[in-house]
Amino acid sequence: HSRLPGYATHQVGVAGAVLDEDTGKVLVVQDKNKTTNAWKFPGGLSDQSEDIGDTAVREVLEETGIKSEFKSILSVRQQHNHPGAFGKSDMYIICRLAPLSYQINFCTRECLKCEWMDLVKLATTSHTTPITSRVAKLLLYGYRQGFDKIDMTMKEYPAVYSGMVYRLYHRELPVNLEN
Amino acid sequence: HSRLPGYATHQVGVAGAVLDEDTGKVLVVQDKNKTTNAWKFPGGLSDQSEDIGDTAVREVLEETGIKSEFKSILSVRQQHNHPGAFGKSDMYIICRLAPLSYQINFCTRECLKCEWMDLVKLATTSHTTPITSRVAKLLLYGYRQGFDKIDMTMKEYPAVYSGMVYRLYHRELPVNLEN
Repeated sequence: HSRLPGYATHQVGVAGAVLDEDTGKVLVVQDKNKTTNAWKFPGGLSDQSEDIGDTAVREVLEETGIKSEFKSILSVRQQHNHPGAFGKSDMYIICRLAPLSYQINFCTRECLKCEWMDLVKLATTSHTTPITSRVAKLLLYGYRQGFDKIDMTMKEYPAVYSGMVYRLYHRELPVNLEN
Repeated sequence: HSRLPGYATHQVGVAGAVLDEDTGKVLVVQDKNKTTNAWKFPGGLSDQSEDIGDTAVREVLEETGIKSEFKSILSVRQQHNHPGAFGKSDMYIICRLAPLSYQINFCTRECLKCEWMDLVKLATTSHTTPITSRVAKLLLYGYRQGFDKIDMTMKEYPAVYSGMVYRLYHRELPVNLEN
């Protein structure tokens, strides 16, 4: 059957796991009006035409006051009939970010708490969501063994028809296969 | 600013790179009415509430007649103001699939040509798109060195609030960090 015209079926949410490599601490929040005592990574919905990494950096800044820069994509989750998406599907992406500032000034309208938490603690606490726990373990693996073990890094490419740029995320290629 | 209510901003397209590990050949098509002589992986838009891997398997079957099974996600591309998406953004995902049948019976309405092509040839030909070439090189790397080098594998998790299941894609965790 015909695939045209295209139509939007997904909202895209992005969270940022901001890891301070010097201290081994990661930035976490507790949302207001959500599950009690569940630590998670700050994040929210993409604005129209906003790149994945830009959403992560913006949401982290809005919620926590921390400035950061995009490093990679760590995970992608797809969920259908998402409660917040009016029957649409939800694509939720967690990015690895590096901090550019350290002084927390969190949004009291969105967050109940915000702190720099030891990554080992986040990876082992029961006071978190299944996804956050999983990605904390993944991040810990990368922190210990090298981020090349866990990252999907970004490359920009020219779009064939439009003359625009698109961004492709995948595992690193070895140098001999780059051309 | 408020992130609620959610709204759909993206269409999601999925392509399948079906690799026959016994022969080192990969399934490629040339679309009708597109760039001349450009080999690419078969694929198309997700239906409402369709999982990424299911879209890849369905589109491959519809376009080429080849049955396959989902193995992993290889790459994610985000593009804004996509020509086919009416000002919405486009998320385009390429999956690694394994063939379950081998006899091509391609859709002459969608495709001009379809064949099993040597993966080395696809990775080096100029008769393809930049993304296809890139992912062919990535797939070649995985074929030679182990798919763990290139895969984002899928795990299912219970969704906290809804009692539904969601699917999370990320790099493999070492066994000692699984719990």
